[in-house]
Amino acid sequence: MVSGGTRAVARCDELGAAPYSDSAEGLTRTYLSPAYLAAQDRLALWMEQAGMSVRRDPAMNLVGRYEGTDPAAPILLIGSHLDSVIDAGRYDGPLGIMLGVEAVAALSSAGQRLPFAIEVIAFGDEEGSRFPAAMLTSRAVAGTLDPAALALRDGAGVALADLVDIAAYPSAARAPGSIFAYLEAHIEQGPVLEDKGLALGTVTGIAAQLRYQVTLSGMAGHAGTTSMPLRRDALAGAAEAILAAERIARDDQSDLVATVGRIEALPGAANVIPGEARFTLDVRSGDEARRDRGAEAILDAIAQVAERRGLDFVITRIHDLPASPCDGALMDLMDAALAEAGHPPFRLVSGAGHDAMNMAALCPTAMLFLRCRAGISHNPAEHVEPADAEAALQVMLGFIDRLGAMRAA
Amino acid sequence: MVSGGTRAVARCDELGAAPYSDSAEGLTRTYLSPAYLAAQDRLALWMEQAGMSVRRDPAMNLVGRYEGTDPAAPILLIGSHLDSVIDAGRYDGPLGIMLGVEAVAALSSAGQRLPFAIEVIAFGDEEGSRFPAAMLTSRAVAGTLDPAALALRDGAGVALADLVDIAAYPSAARAPGSIFAYLEAHIEQGPVLEDKGLALGTVTGIAAQLRYQVTLSGMAGHAGTTSMPLRRDALAGAAEAILAAERIARDDQSDLVATVGRIEALPGAANVIPGEARFTLDVRSGDEARRDRGAEAILDAIAQVAERRGLDFVITRIHDLPASPCDGALMDLMDAALAEAGHPPFRLVSGAGHDAMNMAALCPTAMLFLRCRAGISHNPAEHVEPADAEAALQVMLGFIDRLGAMRAA
Repeated sequence: MVSGGTRAVARCDELGAAPYSDSAEGLTRTYLSPAYLAAQDRLALWMEQAGMSVRRDPAMNLVGRYEGTDPAAPILLIGSHLDSVIDAGRYDGPLGIMLGVEAVAALSSAGQRLPFAIEVIAFGDEEGSRFPAAMLTSRAVAGTLDPAALALRDGAGVALADLVDIAAYPSAARAPGSIFAYLEAHIEQGPVLEDKGLALGTVTGIAAQLRYQVTLSGMAGHAGTTSMPLRRDALAGAAEAILAAERIARDDQSDLVATVGRIEALPGAANVIPGEARFTLDVRSGDEARRDRGAEAILDAIAQVAERRGLDFVITRIHDLPASPCDGALMDLMDAALAEAGHPPFRLVSGAGHDAMNMAALCPTAMLFLRCRAGISHNPAEHVEPADAEAALQVMLGFIDRLGAMRAA
Repeated sequence: MVSGGTRAVARCDELGAAPYSDSAEGLTRTYLSPAYLAAQDRLALWMEQAGMSVRRDPAMNLVGRYEGTDPAAPILLIGSHLDSVIDAGRYDGPLGIMLGVEAVAALSSAGQRLPFAIEVIAFGDEEGSRFPAAMLTSRAVAGTLDPAALALRDGAGVALADLVDIAAYPSAARAPGSIFAYLEAHIEQGPVLEDKGLALGTVTGIAAQLRYQVTLSGMAGHAGTTSMPLRRDALAGAAEAILAAERIARDDQSDLVATVGRIEALPGAANVIPGEARFTLDVRSGDEARRDRGAEAILDAIAQVAERRGLDFVITRIHDLPASPCDGALMDLMDAALAEAGHPPFRLVSGAGHDAMNMAALCPTAMLFLRCRAGISHNPAEHVEPADAEAALQVMLGFIDRLGAMRAA
């Protein structure tokens, strides 16, 4: 008999192609597409086999319920998302759902009931790859979704309102107090665990994120006719800014990260000195104050570069997402479950957003990260070892066991 | 009566709009377009008024001839180009022609004949803004044009062969020994003269030019999930390369210039660490050996950056144009003419290419640069002061006078 972890990975693989993909080749599964609905049907069967009753909620999340000894008690919700990015890997999202199903299957086959029901939820719109919005369905469940935000059309002009009952949509919200904890297992989507030689890690929270658009302006000129001392080269200024961002984040020796991901030099000809350079700056940390200090230091460095080089600059803040810390008591439980299963407890921040960040508005949250090969994600090369998935399943069962003891006490 | 220099500028201005422009707004005058032919017709009239006989040569250059005392003697050729870039300034090219016409007009009105004929040539395809080639007509005159290179079509599919007799085209070549000197006056297209407070400068030659395409490859990754020490950020490597190129050229304290004009980071999303960075590198100096040493130092620095950062790199050489020095004896004559007219002699290299670089294959060449405002060129804001054009005219006349004395001796 295969282990639950191996089966969870195999099920993600099964869902990794048509008819569970919108595309004939590879995997693209967007919210409410035929492939999405087919994947829900397949998942519903697996949930039933694990001993759960299954329903779709008004936001078109699929929800399986495994009853506890007290049907009225607040529940444990385990979840992640079933949708994907364009040309996706197979584990970003689905693995957390499949591990939830396996956890219930293990309890169910052992005939074990907890003092609370467990629900496994497959969220629907985490990636935002269909409509110009993201995490609609976890926001709906958390009760933080503005109904006005549902007036959406996809790239083909199809309205969300044509696919679901948007009047009923907000009623997917769970009542405050009805969920005592939310647990999400997810691949790390980064190289930290692999680098440390660890299969698993306890997530401390979702990083706070700041994003800026920076424009430096100097003077364009002929690359052949403008001597070096007379130049006001905007791209050379941007190069200093990029290295300052890297140095400031690196020297912090923390979870602070700073990235320039997009750059453009204008007019953009090989024989013209750039008169303008435009770039993005993304700054994150699990600690909002640290993030803000880092961003401020980088922006100061940019201003100094501009001053020294005689460049003008415009900096526009595009995003400011607050940190979403995981619950301290739940992190301690997770660490204990890791230790018990023979894994050295290790904590790390999530630089990427997850449904957990929305659920934190409703209940305490916990996240368990699984190592993924080379940190690669949002890519067909995304890979997770079945042994790591099995390790995650055992830690989740240990975590649930501890929750059971805690809630019974 | 207006000065010749003022009239030369005014004639450039007159040619700066329709019907002498292909476009209703601004100036775009491409080789062999109706606007180009109309400008030739207007120029032919001015040449005749200055006392010249006028013809079109087989490459569709317009040529005016002012006879000397010895019709069989090798001639002085004065020229520049009548075509323009897209959305051009009005002086890049035409001013050198108009100053040649004014020089002849001054001699003619004074009844002065030299021991050689003077021809003024308006070249046709310096900028390469119509066909995928450049400087066709000066190469034809110099006898360095490969006839096979004439199988060209413009962006609209029109063949060069439909517009001119390409079989006859190479016969535009002048016989070796038939031209004893080529003189070209041109706006500097750079800020050096303005920075020095000088109206004019003697050009030492056209800079040798090397151009490279550089690709650095690291590892793309999620901007939020990859901690700083684990990154292999190709754009951060490119930033170091840009600054190394700038530092090496600046520290040389010579005419060496190095420019990164175009850059791209891939995949190019604000939340993704660049896995690849592509950029151009352009290196020039009037001294080929200096250029080569500079380029080698920059490429070494790029290799070191790549090594230190664990990046792969590919460097492709796109162009290698040799230097085209101006004639030493003619530079001395030009300096003397400058001094006589009250201008401190000042020498500078041309970082940009000019028809003179092709003519150098046929005869000794001289160039005189005129200050242009803020070094701006290839732009409607291109500006030259009429007083500077008048100064240039007087220096050209002094230069011609000295040539006359030299050839008569």
